[in-house]
Amino acid sequence: MKLYGWGRAPNPRRVLIYLREKGLDVPTEDAGEKDSSILRRDFLEAHPHRRVPLLALDDGTAIVEAMAICRYFETLHPEPSLMGRDAKEIALIDMWERLAEWEGLHAVSEIFRNSHPNFADRSLAGFADALPQIPALVGRGQLRMKRFYEKFDARLAGNEFVAGDRFSVADITTFCAIDFGRVCRLSIPEDCASLKRWHEAVSARPSIRT
Amino acid sequence: MKLYGWGRAPNPRRVLIYLREKGLDVPTEDAGEKDSSILRRDFLEAHPHRRVPLLALDDGTAIVEAMAICRYFETLHPEPSLMGRDAKEIALIDMWERLAEWEGLHAVSEIFRNSHPNFADRSLAGFADALPQIPALVGRGQLRMKRFYEKFDARLAGNEFVAGDRFSVADITTFCAIDFGRVCRLSIPEDCASLKRWHEAVSARPSIRT
Repeated sequence: MKLYGWGRAPNPRRVLIYLREKGLDVPTEDAGEKDSSILRRDFLEAHPHRRVPLLALDDGTAIVEAMAICRYFETLHPEPSLMGRDAKEIALIDMWERLAEWEGLHAVSEIFRNSHPNFADRSLAGFADALPQIPALVGRGQLRMKRFYEKFDARLAGNEFVAGDRFSVADITTFCAIDFGRVCRLSIPEDCASLKRWHEAVSARPSIRT
Repeated sequence: MKLYGWGRAPNPRRVLIYLREKGLDVPTEDAGEKDSSILRRDFLEAHPHRRVPLLALDDGTAIVEAMAICRYFETLHPEPSLMGRDAKEIALIDMWERLAEWEGLHAVSEIFRNSHPNFADRSLAGFADALPQIPALVGRGQLRMKRFYEKFDARLAGNEFVAGDRFSVADITTFCAIDFGRVCRLSIPEDCASLKRWHEAVSARPSIRT
């Protein structure tokens, strides 16, 4: 079994934080070309999904999508639970994780991929065709991130963690979205006190500090 | 308990097909304004997520995101399984469902929302701020759909269903993406024989024919 990541890219990072929270040790490999912002040719040829994280099982099965990889491990090792224990908790964690991915991580990726010079012709992750940047997506992404901060701040005003009273994968994705925002010079707005309180607590966890 | 949908919108439809496959009967309500392309004001005020499908539980909990809603029911009623039985199957279904959502359903929604006159100022579902359409996303969406058809055709050349040898939520999302494509005058390319074979078989299921 091997887990492919790529430097400090936010999507592989979700899985790395998850594995540390679970106390699981999985062999990893960086799929990035050295000193470059492209994935290695041999990795792309072997794995036409063109995406990281990718978990290669010993039988040759390749699993992409950070949360699908986490769910693989969660099924094998249910405790400590990071994806919920009963129907309602499982659904709320799945829901908030997906909201954090779509409204946070996708929004900030939209800014990054459509503004960073290294991705001038590769504005969509995992897409093989040349795809020029769309400048209008930078402004849209910033507006989306503003709403993301506000929405999650409101959510955390009444909850210790994103999906409720326990740390879960929803917190991991929310953290990675916020942290990747720093690359795009975005940070939690000053008036989002609940989100700041949560961010400080979560940043101190050993799985994230590492 | 009540499930809110909206006409023939593709995301609520994923849940409706799922429930029919499971043989579950859940009270539903349409959240759309009559003879209009907006959601009802009372629905938006009660549910700031501004999204359908939305499952309102009797204790007041609101669950959004089609797959989070399905996972709620899947946990309560594991059989017939539509989200997998063991770690590898569960992960592969989750992975292919997410790929179908991102590479198919999001791509076609991108075309629809950025071209249909009814959404001139509402180019992103669930977003409260006015957001003008971005014409460049129409062409990008068409390119993404082309790759989506080809990728899923290749996948189905070696598998009866999207995630393997059994019908799952991955098939439901793939079907809804393809079917919503018709609204944008897109259809399965002639040379995608495996995808066509699969589409014909899936279209005949009672859960979808209805």
